[in-house]
Amino acid sequence: MIETFRVDPVFSAASVAAAEWPLCHVRLQDDARFPWLILIPRTPGATELEMLTPAQRAVLTEEIVRAGALVRQLAEMTDAPMDKLNIASLGNVTPQLHVHIVGRRQNDPLWPDPVWGRPGAEPWPSEVRACLIDAIATAPLMR
Amino acid sequence: MIETFRVDPVFSAASVAAAEWPLCHVRLQDDARFPWLILIPRTPGATELEMLTPAQRAVLTEEIVRAGALVRQLAEMTDAPMDKLNIASLGNVTPQLHVHIVGRRQNDPLWPDPVWGRPGAEPWPSEVRACLIDAIATAPLMR
Repeated sequence: MIETFRVDPVFSAASVAAAEWPLCHVRLQDDARFPWLILIPRTPGATELEMLTPAQRAVLTEEIVRAGALVRQLAEMTDAPMDKLNIASLGNVTPQLHVHIVGRRQNDPLWPDPVWGRPGAEPWPSEVRACLIDAIATAPLMR
Repeated sequence: MIETFRVDPVFSAASVAAAEWPLCHVRLQDDARFPWLILIPRTPGATELEMLTPAQRAVLTEEIVRAGALVRQLAEMTDAPMDKLNIASLGNVTPQLHVHIVGRRQNDPLWPDPVWGRPGAEPWPSEVRACLIDAIATAPLMR
């Protein structure tokens, strides 16, 4: 039986689909406090990094780097340059394997604490969200 | 000028050196609430994943998987199997590039929240710590 990949519907509550990369479904977190992408490898049933093959993990790592470059770009489009990337795969609440790439600024409302499990998300204004999704969808592949 | 790799002395306050792997210096977080390793690539001056070469990143990814398997083993040595790996590279407080690999249990004191930036660390009893460090130091290489 071939399992089909489906994005856990829980992600729809707080993020929007933005692109499909070679390994990952890419989402924009709908929170104007942070430039924040989520990568979800299209691997049915995966909950831990070790469940990907070494080749898939290598692709994931390069897609994380690509997402980091894009988060830097989104930061400058929306406010000010970011100071630090926060990269994490947690899954305590939503087990489907996913990686957060979050741009942090020293003056953001949660600095230096982690962003997960904290209230206060502020949805992007719809025009800005559309502009960010366009930037993600048209981002060049890594050289 | 060749910069020399040095572990940021801040790490000494909460973790102990346990092994040297091909890319990373490996530390055991001194907190009996969680089986928790820290990997620090021995790359002078690196603060973000993108500052490693693609080849170094691929090695780091496989060392993260190896650390995850080891964290599972430490969990069973000390209490009960873990439920979820939490993998993160933050660096908001200590910029030197490092990756946390934390074994989480649904009954741990912070579940499902992230562990970083929260007080309450409980140092390992010294005999247990020595035993864990021995397990880390003698862990087999990945197949």
